[in-house]
Amino acid sequence: MNIGPYSYEDFLVTIKDFHGNIAPGIIAGGIMVDIARANLPAGEFFDVICETGHCLPDAVQILTPCTIGNGWLKIVDTSRYALTFYNKYTGDGTRVFLDAGKLGDWHCIRAWFLKDKPKKEQDFEGIIDEFRRAGTSIYSIKKVKVKPTYISSAKKKSSQVGLCPSCGEAYRTSLGKTCSACQGLGPFID
Amino acid sequence: MNIGPYSYEDFLVTIKDFHGNIAPGIIAGGIMVDIARANLPAGEFFDVICETGHCLPDAVQILTPCTIGNGWLKIVDTSRYALTFYNKYTGDGTRVFLDAGKLGDWHCIRAWFLKDKPKKEQDFEGIIDEFRRAGTSIYSIKKVKVKPTYISSAKKKSSQVGLCPSCGEAYRTSLGKTCSACQGLGPFID
Repeated sequence: MNIGPYSYEDFLVTIKDFHGNIAPGIIAGGIMVDIARANLPAGEFFDVICETGHCLPDAVQILTPCTIGNGWLKIVDTSRYALTFYNKYTGDGTRVFLDAGKLGDWHCIRAWFLKDKPKKEQDFEGIIDEFRRAGTSIYSIKKVKVKPTYISSAKKKSSQVGLCPSCGEAYRTSLGKTCSACQGLGPFID
Repeated sequence: MNIGPYSYEDFLVTIKDFHGNIAPGIIAGGIMVDIARANLPAGEFFDVICETGHCLPDAVQILTPCTIGNGWLKIVDTSRYALTFYNKYTGDGTRVFLDAGKLGDWHCIRAWFLKDKPKKEQDFEGIIDEFRRAGTSIYSIKKVKVKPTYISSAKKKSSQVGLCPSCGEAYRTSLGKTCSACQGLGPFID
């Protein structure tokens, strides 16, 4: 099977280059991206929501124009292994998820997906082989409508920038009188 | 000047390939990644925090092994244009930020960074040229210590997975009796 423009083997190499290791979740993610694309209206521009930050977003970044830095990819963590391609103006989307109810015969994938075994006891080669043989059979599709907060508004206002009177750095003034780091919400110990 | 393994021109092409357009912020981000790396202890493994989700994370994903999907890149949105490379075990880090106080002579960059002009009135070619000529002179560095929540614990427990009794999908059972989507926190309209 192919994944995006890659042969299965080439996709594994591409995963390793971008992600650092051949994470099984990105193989699944690549197949899920292909399923979503095949179910989109032709020629439609789309944004993507991943429902987990683990692995799946990297499949999207490898295979689509959507990245975390260009804003076309969003992570809304429900912890489910699912992605949604949606029309950014209407919110109409196609959600694809790895379906636990379809994993009956795929023991290696099941042990990995449901964490039936500790990671070091997982059969890594078996998982990769099963993902190839299972093809698209272990995923399900659902039509969804995303919440308005994820839809582009034509009248979206650009945020104002000012200098934080506390740290002196540029920040979105809509956040308050100081930047959020100076409000104690930053990642550092003072 | 070079950015990572790229000539300045080749980096612009790489930005376009990954991000979709030559966003000025990623040029700045690439230079910031190089500054951070040059100030790290030799051979150290690092994680990265970006303080904005706009553009900057893509510079990190293009130039380092850290991606949003492998967890080595985190976004903690303070809205400041800053990134921190840090030791994931000690939390000791090097923070690099685009320093508004150093933009005096760089009018195109200033107009872009502080949003002095609407986007359509920005001098895009001027910004790119100024970033090249300004080199590393418009950034500042600070040693920081990141909060414990961003530090890897050797005893980190793997989360348990179960099937949500409401939607039937696999989820982290630590989230509650149902997955967060079934608690109303998902991205979809029911």
